[in-house]
Amino acid sequence: MKKIQFADQKQEFSKRPSKIGRRSLSRSISQSSTDSYSSAASYTDSSDDETSPRDKQQKNSKGNGDFCIKNIKQADFGRREIEIAEQEMPALMALRKRAQGEKPLAGAKVVGCTHITAQTAVLMETLSALGAQCRWAACNIYSTQNEVAAALAEGGFSVFAWKGESEDDFWWCIDRCVNVEGWQPNMILDDGGDLTHWIYKKYPNMFKKIKGIVEESVTGVHRLYQLSKAGKLCVPAMNVNDSVTKQKFDNLYCCRESILDGLKRTTDVMFGGKQVVVCGYGEVGKGCCAALKAMGSIVYVTEIDPICALQACMDGFRLVKLNEVIRQVDIVITCTGNKNVVVREYLDRMKNGCIVCNMGHSNTEIDVASLRTPELTWERVRSQVDHVIWPDGKRIVLLAEGRLLNLSCSTVPTFVLSITATTQALALIELYNAPEGRYKQDVYLLPKKMGKKYMCTQAREIENSLDWYLSSHQAGSYLQ
Amino acid sequence: MKKIQFADQKQEFSKRPSKIGRRSLSRSISQSSTDSYSSAASYTDSSDDETSPRDKQQKNSKGNGDFCIKNIKQADFGRREIEIAEQEMPALMALRKRAQGEKPLAGAKVVGCTHITAQTAVLMETLSALGAQCRWAACNIYSTQNEVAAALAEGGFSVFAWKGESEDDFWWCIDRCVNVEGWQPNMILDDGGDLTHWIYKKYPNMFKKIKGIVEESVTGVHRLYQLSKAGKLCVPAMNVNDSVTKQKFDNLYCCRESILDGLKRTTDVMFGGKQVVVCGYGEVGKGCCAALKAMGSIVYVTEIDPICALQACMDGFRLVKLNEVIRQVDIVITCTGNKNVVVREYLDRMKNGCIVCNMGHSNTEIDVASLRTPELTWERVRSQVDHVIWPDGKRIVLLAEGRLLNLSCSTVPTFVLSITATTQALALIELYNAPEGRYKQDVYLLPKKMGKKYMCTQAREIENSLDWYLSSHQAGSYLQ
Amino acid sequence: MKKIQFADQKQEFSKRPSKIGRRSLSRSISQSSTDSYSSAASYTDSSDDETSPRDKQQKNSKGNGDFCIKNIKQADFGRREIEIAEQEMPALMALRKRAQGEKPLAGAKVVGCTHITAQTAVLMETLSALGAQCRWAACNIYSTQNEVAAALAEGGFSVFAWKGESEDDFWWCIDRCVNVEGWQPNMILDDGGDLTHWIYKKYPNMFKKIKGIVEESVTGVHRLYQLSKAGKLCVPAMNVNDSVTKQKFDNLYCCRESILDGLKRTTDVMFGGKQVVVCGYGEVGKGCCAALKAMGSIVYVTEIDPICALQACMDGFRLVKLNEVIRQVDIVITCTGNKNVVVREYLDRMKNGCIVCNMGHSNTEIDVASLRTPELTWERVRSQVDHVIWPDGKRIVLLAEGRLLNLSCSTVPTFVLSITATTQALALIELYNAPEGRYKQDVYLLPKKMGKKYMCTQAREIENSLDWYLSSHQAGSYLQ
Amino acid sequence: MKKIQFADQKQEFSKRPSKIGRRSLSRSISQSSTDSYSSAASYTDSSDDETSPRDKQQKNSKGNGDFCIKNIKQADFGRREIEIAEQEMPALMALRKRAQGEKPLAGAKVVGCTHITAQTAVLMETLSALGAQCRWAACNIYSTQNEVAAALAEGGFSVFAWKGESEDDFWWCIDRCVNVEGWQPNMILDDGGDLTHWIYKKYPNMFKKIKGIVEESVTGVHRLYQLSKAGKLCVPAMNVNDSVTKQKFDNLYCCRESILDGLKRTTDVMFGGKQVVVCGYGEVGKGCCAALKAMGSIVYVTEIDPICALQACMDGFRLVKLNEVIRQVDIVITCTGNKNVVVREYLDRMKNGCIVCNMGHSNTEIDVASLRTPELTWERVRSQVDHVIWPDGKRIVLLAEGRLLNLSCSTVPTFVLSITATTQALALIELYNAPEGRYKQDVYLLPKKMGKKYMCTQAREIENSLDWYLSSHQAGSYLQ
Repeated sequence: MKKIQFADQKQEFSKRPSKIGRRSLSRSISQSSTDSYSSAASYTDSSDDETSPRDKQQKNSKGNGDFCIKNIKQADFGRREIEIAEQEMPALMALRKRAQGEKPLAGAKVVGCTHITAQTAVLMETLSALGAQCRWAACNIYSTQNEVAAALAEGGFSVFAWKGESEDDFWWCIDRCVNVEGWQPNMILDDGGDLTHWIYKKYPNMFKKIKGIVEESVTGVHRLYQLSKAGKLCVPAMNVNDSVTKQKFDNLYCCRESILDGLKRTTDVMFGGKQVVVCGYGEVGKGCCAALKAMGSIVYVTEIDPICALQACMDGFRLVKLNEVIRQVDIVITCTGNKNVVVREYLDRMKNGCIVCNMGHSNTEIDVASLRTPELTWERVRSQVDHVIWPDGKRIVLLAEGRLLNLSCSTVPTFVLSITATTQALALIELYNAPEGRYKQDVYLLPKKMGKKYMCTQAREIENSLDWYLSSHQAGSYLQ
Repeated sequence: MKKIQFADQKQEFSKRPSKIGRRSLSRSISQSSTDSYSSAASYTDSSDDETSPRDKQQKNSKGNGDFCIKNIKQADFGRREIEIAEQEMPALMALRKRAQGEKPLAGAKVVGCTHITAQTAVLMETLSALGAQCRWAACNIYSTQNEVAAALAEGGFSVFAWKGESEDDFWWCIDRCVNVEGWQPNMILDDGGDLTHWIYKKYPNMFKKIKGIVEESVTGVHRLYQLSKAGKLCVPAMNVNDSVTKQKFDNLYCCRESILDGLKRTTDVMFGGKQVVVCGYGEVGKGCCAALKAMGSIVYVTEIDPICALQACMDGFRLVKLNEVIRQVDIVITCTGNKNVVVREYLDRMKNGCIVCNMGHSNTEIDVASLRTPELTWERVRSQVDHVIWPDGKRIVLLAEGRLLNLSCSTVPTFVLSITATTQALALIELYNAPEGRYKQDVYLLPKKMGKKYMCTQAREIENSLDWYLSSHQAGSYLQ
Repeated sequence: MKKIQFADQKQEFSKRPSKIGRRSLSRSISQSSTDSYSSAASYTDSSDDETSPRDKQQKNSKGNGDFCIKNIKQADFGRREIEIAEQEMPALMALRKRAQGEKPLAGAKVVGCTHITAQTAVLMETLSALGAQCRWAACNIYSTQNEVAAALAEGGFSVFAWKGESEDDFWWCIDRCVNVEGWQPNMILDDGGDLTHWIYKKYPNMFKKIKGIVEESVTGVHRLYQLSKAGKLCVPAMNVNDSVTKQKFDNLYCCRESILDGLKRTTDVMFGGKQVVVCGYGEVGKGCCAALKAMGSIVYVTEIDPICALQACMDGFRLVKLNEVIRQVDIVITCTGNKNVVVREYLDRMKNGCIVCNMGHSNTEIDVASLRTPELTWERVRSQVDHVIWPDGKRIVLLAEGRLLNLSCSTVPTFVLSITATTQALALIELYNAPEGRYKQDVYLLPKKMGKKYMCTQAREIENSLDWYLSSHQAGSYLQ
Repeated sequence: MKKIQFADQKQEFSKRPSKIGRRSLSRSISQSSTDSYSSAASYTDSSDDETSPRDKQQKNSKGNGDFCIKNIKQADFGRREIEIAEQEMPALMALRKRAQGEKPLAGAKVVGCTHITAQTAVLMETLSALGAQCRWAACNIYSTQNEVAAALAEGGFSVFAWKGESEDDFWWCIDRCVNVEGWQPNMILDDGGDLTHWIYKKYPNMFKKIKGIVEESVTGVHRLYQLSKAGKLCVPAMNVNDSVTKQKFDNLYCCRESILDGLKRTTDVMFGGKQVVVCGYGEVGKGCCAALKAMGSIVYVTEIDPICALQACMDGFRLVKLNEVIRQVDIVITCTGNKNVVVREYLDRMKNGCIVCNMGHSNTEIDVASLRTPELTWERVRSQVDHVIWPDGKRIVLLAEGRLLNLSCSTVPTFVLSITATTQALALIELYNAPEGRYKQDVYLLPKKMGKKYMCTQAREIENSLDWYLSSHQAGSYLQ
């Protein structure tokens, strides 16, 4: 098997257009590939085994062989990673403990397709504790933490995933989850819509027994809405992506920390006194601006929406047009969600040493393609860091080749993933237990806990989980 | 040559008591060993060459062989690291450009003993541009960036240093700098006092020609004051460590950033909502508190000095005694400068998952020794991260084994090192050019630029350098 | 006419229950009565004329007598107040200038019932410049700035309002605006719903010619929704109260400043180091917390909504239950929007000197009635400041008798009123020019400028006004 | 007696050049004259009694007549003001309570000359409780709170002071304190040096019995150093002005709050989004910048000292030259301590509505004199607020005619005065009890509590007082 270079991986990845822009997609790529502290990457990477997992005979210590992973021997190491993750997932652990008595997922047969990480493992083991049977594939060919997959397989889960799958492997794994004798899923947990798509295409009859779909990603949700519009959605679906907590966490709170982390790990830049322009003042922009302001940077904001512009203004950031400050800033950060915000013209005018990165959407905000011209020299100085050198010697420091900095060069805190995983679990519980007729063949948001009036058990779980969350988080001060 | 484990290195290091507590000592250990982004560590580490540099015949491309390093072939790589460092050292580069005409160090023969890093290389090449001849050894057996040493050797510098020297190598290298036919130093630039000590011991007569010593570290300065008190200091010495800029930068501004960086890289912890106790509200504590408050942590402060306590209070931090909050906090950070601030009793009462780290002084603030008892299990989960596990399963997350987090798990921004290096260069210039009698055989602070009254050329340099600094830093807005 | 005491005024006011809780109601009471810097109160107050305005013959300098105010001689003074207000109302002035050419309100006959202040005058003169004819009464018996009314009358406006109207005067003034020969209103601008109510009751036929109602207050909007539900709303109505800009400004940004201002003016308390509990973490609570944190207070938050609680937590505030901290805090601030948040039990346990105030809703959050018991002594130490003294000598400092601190003891910046006034003007323009059928007999929010899709001229005005706003506000840096 | 206008007062005041620039001088002017909330000014002002206090027969209820004040009948009202002040002076009250047993000032005969305010009264009554006898005069002809003087006289203190003294009265009062049969002072507590000056001039022999001088003001300290230099200082003196706590409080913490308060009370300006330039980044500038940044202003800094400039830079403020931003800013604040920072040329270029004020030193930073030219119109719009109008209609909003905003338009929190008063008391105790020879005829700083080595009882008092302070301030959390 040819050893895949990291840069190639990314190109590979960008060849699969349906994946582009999916927030969580590269999350684990980042975790497993670029951060030596937070993952077991080195361990995994040192594996010299060139045999495809599909060609191996695999059995766990109990003789069970209904899985396909890289190397079952890594199970102990993976178990420790899972245990560490459990520490920062109090809401999920609380849900596991509390709902365990009732087994609200007794009888549920969940087929899942997500990143296979320690955090996912905590989710899967929670679903199992709540009564569900699970079969799982990876939603991304590079994001699987092999040792975690091993621990899951050792624990009896039917997992089909390894790091560095081929496209063919990818669909093979999904098929192995679904197409199994004597077992038919009645719930889908998807991240990106590939699993859902596969069942639609190959096993449409399965939907007769399926009670619902829980989808986490922007892309997957988008596909579901399209199906719904076209009248082709044949089961209820829960849009976890747009829940309030996920939005606040994935954007404002998470980016507030990851902008600093991402810049520091790649460039070791000192923030104090630096001039920074942040393009866009949505939740992500707000998080970036707040963090950099606090670290002593001088922050400018560009924004076209008048309400957001007014907020930036009232928050103390000077509104500018990019061309006003482009010559003087030390760092340029995009978070508009638009295309071609930083074009070649601006790159030409930046000062020597200017750092350019993207926190916004996909890899389209910085026109990186415009930098692939003969007169410019690219120099890879570190992982995720390129110097692009102009003929006069000026260097621009381009991070993650214009892809999302927070996913490529930082990590998503387990704490944040815990929120999402808890929401996914609650959504499964809600859909699985909902009385006939509560949900039609449409896309739903998880019932928000707003009024005290009527509230179903499951929605109350969110509240309770948050309470537990807060209380475990704040040493009991809140719930005494 | 036996391959030295990282953990062993640290023990080795702590065996040499005179080095303990020297701030800059582990700086480059950190840079070269623990941060895969910011250094060429992997390159260096991959060297399988087991021959001691002392046993090799070495020559650079011009045939010069007056140096001893690991591998001259790494010179190109080292050159690039130096060029990158130059970008973030505007004050030093400005000094190089401005003072070059006058050659204020013409005739100076500087012998130096510091960490051999890209930043040091920029300093050495600046001194050379100002007219000085230099010979250099490393002040630490592990901190040398081999590729930088190679670039310096290739550039004609007499460098004697490599990563992983033995104690014997260490003194041999220093001796090779000093004991050379036909060349006698007239200036000393030291970091830790070992070079000074060696000359005192072996070549006391050399001091007749030496115009002065510039010393950067706490330990070295302490030794100089002892010599001075004992009436044995026979040349003037400049205490660079206590200059205002160095203090503010090394402590307040630097720690404000490195506390976040150090915690994030090691634990990926989310700061928002975490309860943190910071022990000590000096400059370091102020920096830590400000950063964590800005990231949404709830911060408590312990402080015994009433003035600092009052400041913490007026800055909005709740003053506590450690035992009041020890059960509820998620993170404990020491920056008191004292011993045994966090003792076993407190560690016993921390909650599961509590992170404990030291930003203060040496490795004495956390009583790590008290954790080396049979009933506790240590588990190294990542580099610099240990889980200490109590019999009931409670885990404490101990960072860097209680050594300085900012040096072990973060990096010192080049920007900050630039301040120190500029101050060192100015101190050399001042001492070298001072008229007879300005400096006695005593320890001096660099003349502070306070009054407009009388100000010597060199002191004005500081001001000018700072001006250039600011201006280059702020895109000319300040000095137009 | 009996001179009405300030305290009596407030009681008078609270006798009219339909007014309670209307945000803007006491705004001008505050401005004209309690703040000697920001108003011309003393001038007005010094008038000894006891004759009722209704009994006087009144004419302005041009011989026009279609108005009824206190004293036309105060016109010059009022004019200056209006000119000062114009300085801080850039959006409204921009709208005046820009839309003036087109006269988008040509033919509009606007009857208004709002507070008569300098800011209202700028609005009225803008409406007039846009082509409208106006007749105006006061929506509150105490809030009229007599000198501004005089300036308006002198300028040709038919104003019927003075400070200290009786209830009978109040309705007489409204009637004089509506019931006039040869003039019939086709637009209503109301604040509180009294004008709308009067027309419903007395002149229902007028609605045939009325194109719409613009309503600003919570109370008035509430009444409109009730009418709408009951199927009795016979014209379209615009709910200005719930527009995004108004909400953000009236709550978050405005309270961030007025909490400091209100506390300082009444108590001169130093914020640094004080322990404060803020009850409720909605927009108002967020503003209060941010301001006090920045001033060095130690802030605790109580919150029952889990999402808001999580936000408080992630913003770095410790979540508590009130009884946990009630004994130790120096200041208690309510902003929950609920009743009886601070009850006698808590008041009994507060420490000596504790300051208690309400920033939330109406005057119901602090159970002030429970303090009117024989064993407690009330001492009015300053305007708006009472010491309530327990038998053991403990004093609680109660501000504004539990009414809204920001309205009673601070001022609403003209800048903020400008946003509201601009929105009102745009709502009038929109309703007046909307093509047949765009608006039904229902309550609408002003079309939010969200999508680029379709946007009517008037909605674009909002955007443009905001642009002008920002540009005038930021010295052209934004729109160059 | 001619009624003195407020404006005249200020001119009167500025005729006495030795007083200019004394920080605390106008403090009480501000308190008693311009802030209707925080003082009993209106009460005092309403007095129509035109007889000079010197011409009246005065006796308190016990028949004691050794005082001279405005009106003994105001004693009850003054007593309440004193009691309110006691609430916010915990350190002083703690000192009173703790040291009372020992009576460390038994036998002390203190003659004082300070502002006569409620806070001073708390100090005097503390000195008395510690064993001292006191005689007191005012250090400023306008700053006396008559009702407080009455309460003191009623309580048996020999007070000679009233609001609106003539110059002749001023010296007469001082003389009455000093020149009394059968009583000779052995301690001096001075604020401004007038009392000390008077004794030097008239009763030099008194110094034989005087154990020391405690001086609070810049001016007074300056005079003492001059005396010392000239060899004419014949007793030890304590410089209270330069104590650490006073500096931090009077400057950083106090100005952080008073800049907001002063601007808000005078102009009701909204801070959010305003562009502000702060001239000078010393402690005062740091306080102003921090506060305005937190309120959402965009803040620029001008600074000539490179260290301070670097701090501003690292704190996130953009360094500018005044002429770069003068056309665009909304507010200009001076805090340099220099002269003519804002000259006519800059004033000419400010935009319409720009607010200009001084937080720095004396009244020299803004060249107000340059605005007294025929083509400019001055319009007093409110107390302390002038509009200066250019021929083209442009208005500049000048606050407090360029005098110190924090003293003219804000109040100094009692909390802060408590620090100073405690320090004064401790300085008296220290000087009075110091063993022969500890203090020579020189100017001293109060022994700083630095080292654990040797510390006299009195210095420990500071620490203890601060402890009490903190503990009372933080509800016991610190000292449990």
